[in-house]
Amino acid sequence: MIQLVSCQESRRRIYASMLMELFDRLSLIPQGAAGPCVRETLRTLGETVPIRQREYPTGTACYDWTVPQEWSVRQAYILDGQGRRLVDYRDHPLHLVERTVPIRKVVSREELLRHLHTRPDLPDSIPYVSALGGEDWGFCLEHRRLAEFTEDLYEVVIDAELAEGTMTIGEGFIQGKTDREILLSANIWPSSLAVSGLSGPIVQTMIYRKLLERTNLKYSYRFLYLPETIGSILYLSRHGEHLRSRMAAGYVVACVGHGESYTYKKSRRGHSLADKAALHILKQSGVPYRVVDWSPIGGDERHYGSQAFDLPVGSLMRTAYADYPEYRTSLDNRTLISEVAMRQTVDLYLDVLMTIESNERYQAMQVHGQPKLDPKALYPFGGAPRIEALERLTAVYSYLLAFSDGTHDVIDIADKLNLTGKDIAEACSALEREGLLRPVSDAAERAGVL
Amino acid sequence: MIQLVSCQESRRRIYASMLMELFDRLSLIPQGAAGPCVRETLRTLGETVPIRQREYPTGTACYDWTVPQEWSVRQAYILDGQGRRLVDYRDHPLHLVERTVPIRKVVSREELLRHLHTRPDLPDSIPYVSALGGEDWGFCLEHRRLAEFTEDLYEVVIDAELAEGTMTIGEGFIQGKTDREILLSANIWPSSLAVSGLSGPIVQTMIYRKLLERTNLKYSYRFLYLPETIGSILYLSRHGEHLRSRMAAGYVVACVGHGESYTYKKSRRGHSLADKAALHILKQSGVPYRVVDWSPIGGDERHYGSQAFDLPVGSLMRTAYADYPEYRTSLDNRTLISEVAMRQTVDLYLDVLMTIESNERYQAMQVHGQPKLDPKALYPFGGAPRIEALERLTAVYSYLLAFSDGTHDVIDIADKLNLTGKDIAEACSALEREGLLRPVSDAAERAGVL
Amino acid sequence: MIQLVSCQESRRRIYASMLMELFDRLSLIPQGAAGPCVRETLRTLGETVPIRQREYPTGTACYDWTVPQEWSVRQAYILDGQGRRLVDYRDHPLHLVERTVPIRKVVSREELLRHLHTRPDLPDSIPYVSALGGEDWGFCLEHRRLAEFTEDLYEVVIDAELAEGTMTIGEGFIQGKTDREILLSANIWPSSLAVSGLSGPIVQTMIYRKLLERTNLKYSYRFLYLPETIGSILYLSRHGEHLRSRMAAGYVVACVGHGESYTYKKSRRGHSLADKAALHILKQSGVPYRVVDWSPIGGDERHYGSQAFDLPVGSLMRTAYADYPEYRTSLDNRTLISEVAMRQTVDLYLDVLMTIESNERYQAMQVHGQPKLDPKALYPFGGAPRIEALERLTAVYSYLLAFSDGTHDVIDIADKLNLTGKDIAEACSALEREGLLRPVSDAAERAGVL
Repeated sequence: MIQLVSCQESRRRIYASMLMELFDRLSLIPQGAAGPCVRETLRTLGETVPIRQREYPTGTACYDWTVPQEWSVRQAYILDGQGRRLVDYRDHPLHLVERTVPIRKVVSREELLRHLHTRPDLPDSIPYVSALGGEDWGFCLEHRRLAEFTEDLYEVVIDAELAEGTMTIGEGFIQGKTDREILLSANIWPSSLAVSGLSGPIVQTMIYRKLLERTNLKYSYRFLYLPETIGSILYLSRHGEHLRSRMAAGYVVACVGHGESYTYKKSRRGHSLADKAALHILKQSGVPYRVVDWSPIGGDERHYGSQAFDLPVGSLMRTAYADYPEYRTSLDNRTLISEVAMRQTVDLYLDVLMTIESNERYQAMQVHGQPKLDPKALYPFGGAPRIEALERLTAVYSYLLAFSDGTHDVIDIADKLNLTGKDIAEACSALEREGLLRPVSDAAERAGVL
Repeated sequence: MIQLVSCQESRRRIYASMLMELFDRLSLIPQGAAGPCVRETLRTLGETVPIRQREYPTGTACYDWTVPQEWSVRQAYILDGQGRRLVDYRDHPLHLVERTVPIRKVVSREELLRHLHTRPDLPDSIPYVSALGGEDWGFCLEHRRLAEFTEDLYEVVIDAELAEGTMTIGEGFIQGKTDREILLSANIWPSSLAVSGLSGPIVQTMIYRKLLERTNLKYSYRFLYLPETIGSILYLSRHGEHLRSRMAAGYVVACVGHGESYTYKKSRRGHSLADKAALHILKQSGVPYRVVDWSPIGGDERHYGSQAFDLPVGSLMRTAYADYPEYRTSLDNRTLISEVAMRQTVDLYLDVLMTIESNERYQAMQVHGQPKLDPKALYPFGGAPRIEALERLTAVYSYLLAFSDGTHDVIDIADKLNLTGKDIAEACSALEREGLLRPVSDAAERAGVL
Repeated sequence: MIQLVSCQESRRRIYASMLMELFDRLSLIPQGAAGPCVRETLRTLGETVPIRQREYPTGTACYDWTVPQEWSVRQAYILDGQGRRLVDYRDHPLHLVERTVPIRKVVSREELLRHLHTRPDLPDSIPYVSALGGEDWGFCLEHRRLAEFTEDLYEVVIDAELAEGTMTIGEGFIQGKTDREILLSANIWPSSLAVSGLSGPIVQTMIYRKLLERTNLKYSYRFLYLPETIGSILYLSRHGEHLRSRMAAGYVVACVGHGESYTYKKSRRGHSLADKAALHILKQSGVPYRVVDWSPIGGDERHYGSQAFDLPVGSLMRTAYADYPEYRTSLDNRTLISEVAMRQTVDLYLDVLMTIESNERYQAMQVHGQPKLDPKALYPFGGAPRIEALERLTAVYSYLLAFSDGTHDVIDIADKLNLTGKDIAEACSALEREGLLRPVSDAAERAGVL
């Protein structure tokens, strides 16, 4: 046992260092051009797990959306009268409004100020701003630096380009024993924000990596790495029907990089297997968490949960979007992100997925009074049995036999015992082996209809 | 805008003065005879809004009730040995038990005391007491004055009459674009109690007046002014089936004259459109309120909610019946009633009614992922859009499009946004105009089946 | 009235003394042999109420269980080297593990200690331990006495026997006006533990006795006195179908001997008539109580609620099993048990049963508006009616008439009035007599389908 523990411990350390190593490698990817940046991110993650890249050219239609042009930046800065670069994209990629149009002109102080974005509440941060379509341009900078803009005229140089190109989607897949699928989905950003950008794909990749090590998975697993909104809508336009017919549960992996507590955002239907398993593990594992209903504000769960698809996709996050001030600013960086938070989240996701794997609806075979439990077969105690252990195991058996009536599944029964589905999986197996429980139907039939 | 505000303000002042002016005029109506008193009250209210008076003769049958005789009083007093009038109806109409039978006799102190009604807990008040049918007579007076009755014999004179006559019901109506009706119902009392008597008809009349100024009302509005119980039961016996087939929602307007908080008494079914709209406005407008279930104790909602009709009629009150000690005593007078309370209640009722007017169940037209919102058509911002305003409006649009799935109505969606239906009515119109939302069915079909 | 009160009081005293007299008589029954001990217990209770004893021979099969051998003990002790009896069954029957096998041998200190059971948390108590089947033997003693075992060798003498015999079940029955049955079930133990052993059968017997004094019972009553688990499973195997077709409600009477508050364990279905009536009385009578869901850990409700039967059997207890440390130790004795607790529990059970007896679903006969109540027939007040009494009675009548719509029963309506079903039984009768209420169907049809 000592051997095993230290082996686990050493694996834990490897994973831990992998999380931060991935973070550091992804942080170094040059931000100059959106397309290559995304592709390089996927290539880097692809060294840890197999990821297939699919390309969709600019203009590809999906419902009322189209794949946009690719954006790239060569240089961008603001010059004062002395030719000093007051704000320079090379200093920090957030200095430039994302998808800003190119421009080169002299502007008055008043006009310039209308195009400068700051966060007065976080005066030392550079906010992340994305152009809302249209012909807009702009720079982002620290609020306290506005005082430096005292001259009347400035030269603005944005040498950027919106051009035909492709949008890239990354996809991974593990074939399980059945075709029922569990989906994990993370966004790939052309920017190196830490928690709001990189934590999702890193944590998802580590879950993917750990699942690859398991054998005998009942479900198949699909991992998507997508640009937000346009990526998931395009994927749905091509594969939405497949997901609708196959998916048992899914989660958007986002904002999983820091914070002490979890936020679970339910799937649209609010009582899907995804919700049930996540809430079960959050409740039984004793971590602090809060639960919010599905809403059309947030991440790609907006699109997975849209009326036409209504997929059972929730989102299990640490401290979520609006709950931390550094969200989408330059302060969302390596200082903010926490290896411990990411690692714990990986483990919690795995607990949730293993709970779904081991979930089952059973029917007890002896239903007239409480069944007589054969001590020899069911109580695997060497030496003199300890009475507490006997009573605890008897309680688990009794609950499983009493409530396995075709309506309660293992999660339901574990909840009544204040245990997790994982905790009682062994007792299920023992009762099934002794002919006292029988699965009501296979997982493929049950999943998704809970 | 300044112009408009001051115009609104001046209209507010006119309404305010109208409320108390109505109160003062109604207070002066002589209380000598029940029939004429009620008719004069309706005539006075009829100067503000059109009210049709209907007469029903004594003995008219409605279910197990009949229209009672009219009661009138010429004089009533108690004389002591020196011929002094210890209690005199002319001093205050509450001194006489309502519907007392006539009597003229000398009685012992003991017999007299059995016929005197006081409120020991409010020793300076004259209670309102109504004869419980039968052959009873009695006087009401201030409890502290009982000490004055020290002699052995008294002469009691009640020169009153119960005679054939009519019962009067007042009715107003506004024809809207559809025949679906909203009912408001208030009681007319043959006594000038302020909060428990006059506040209901005054507030109802002011709501009626304000609705008359509106054009394009979707619903038709019916306003009833009735003697309690016998009035509404008689009305139901004649028009109950009409109400059952047409009514979308209704409210009994009572106890709306003072107090800081509201009481909403739900309709019998407890989840009617009347309940939904009233609770929505109470919750979202931030006023203090409490909610009570329907019960057969209270006002005419007892009869509207009786099993045979089960009409969706609640009662939106300020401080209700039993919640203030002055209820049905001489202390329930001009000192107690509050112009501000009545005016706020009128406004709250109008918010509720406008919420019903603008409520709709929509179906979103693009349901595959979140729709792309056209900035030009949907964001009516002059100049540079403010990001917060954009985000707020985007949230409203997103919720409306995501939840307009044929099951949620505008009230439901507004609740999710912590806004009122009124707040998002404009956004609904914009989305409908742009072809992104379509009403599921017309109001006539929907109302009443929520 | 004085007469009546003191008669009630004297009957109360008789019952009180009967409760403790029964306790003392049952405590004296010799514990040497399980079978005779149970039969003598039933014979003693049978002096108060008629109890029929049924015998089932060893080996009788019921589902996967069989009636076990009878266990009897002649003597059992542990000798030290000086021949002193360190632990002796004659001092306290709990010293011997129940159903221990016979043995006579010299054992080492180490082996002996493995067969000694103590409660370190209650060092002055002898725990109750039952052999878990198998070939085990053992002694129980006070934890503080373990220090006395300092020698190397001991002689262990257990002169006990497991032999063919019979298991005894006691049964009582009261025939009511209908064949619908209410079940009370208590366990008979071959040990004289007070609260966990004797309180159940004593309280059940007293309820039985009090019901025998009533006439006009609507329901029939069945009283079972059974060995735990094997007794109820055997009974179910023979009479389960009868119970399923006849039972309206049932309760396991256990742990009713002490404590200030009640615990109600719901029947498996959780909303049966048994649950409804018990929770109604607990709530309305103002006693402290808590409610727990049905579970397969506890008393015979485990078996009554097993999937094949799913009988509406709850358990109304005082301080339950695990909630008091003395449970199943020698400290659970006459010092712990409380005559007051038993008497109050008898009364509470009777309130619950009378609530079921008087429960009814009525339909009001006049449903158009509130019915006119005839003062002469419905207000049985001599002299001048007191207004509060009139109003209170009017409220009861109004609620009964308004909510008697075929869906609410008397318990539901009493709950809305914050009264018990018993409190309004007289008003029901008056309304039924006057033709204002009519029972929807007879009790036989209703019961069990609530």
